[in-house]
Amino acid sequence: MTKLNHIAILVEQIEDALPFWRDALGLTLSKVEEVPAEKARVAFLPVGESEIELVQPTDPETGLGRYLAKNGGGLHHICLEVPDIAAAMERLQDHGVTLINESPRQREDGTLYAFIHPKSTQGVLLELYQLP
Amino acid sequence: MTKLNHIAILVEQIEDALPFWRDALGLTLSKVEEVPAEKARVAFLPVGESEIELVQPTDPETGLGRYLAKNGGGLHHICLEVPDIAAAMERLQDHGVTLINESPRQREDGTLYAFIHPKSTQGVLLELYQLP
Repeated sequence: MTKLNHIAILVEQIEDALPFWRDALGLTLSKVEEVPAEKARVAFLPVGESEIELVQPTDPETGLGRYLAKNGGGLHHICLEVPDIAAAMERLQDHGVTLINESPRQREDGTLYAFIHPKSTQGVLLELYQLP
Repeated sequence: MTKLNHIAILVEQIEDALPFWRDALGLTLSKVEEVPAEKARVAFLPVGESEIELVQPTDPETGLGRYLAKNGGGLHHICLEVPDIAAAMERLQDHGVTLINESPRQREDGTLYAFIHPKSTQGVLLELYQLP
């Protein structure tokens, strides 16, 4: 396990969140990206070797959109980097852990990722990354 | 803003959480501490420059204990290190941010800390640390 890649915070509107996270707290906004595959906009604010990601669903009918409508904004998931995601997932399955993605999925930039089910983690939605 | 100090995860029992966070995921358990001031036991698992803290309330009548009973386990708060917590808090108040602690409090090891109210952060309980 190498490091914490990011903490994802679900927000109604990125523009409403920046007055706190950027202006009052003093974090740097490195970029805002549209992520059509997830129907979301994401603002990236680096902190040390990690990033805070403000995630704004753009479609209320997605999983993210429904989660926001039901629970409101707040901490959504954390993501840890691993050197070999396939090996990590095999190890997790050997320990009886429930995975949301049975095999790694791939982002456009080549990052491999998978989510672990909160029922195996004491209620935390946990993502794994293997960077390209 | 220097780095993410820790992510706190509320758990019913640390011993029930370790089979996932330590054994299956492969994190190192550096220590388990009793924190009488918070009526909690805390397990520390370093990840890169940050730590995952598994927080087990030892008294159901505390704020932590009631939160756990109401919401179940899961992500509880995140903590960012700042070089000067008094300056950071003054800046936050100048921006109209609601603080839970109006002035910094001190842990036994000399760490100064303060919590920011979730209503100012899009639903995230956020702690600031100034290390001794």
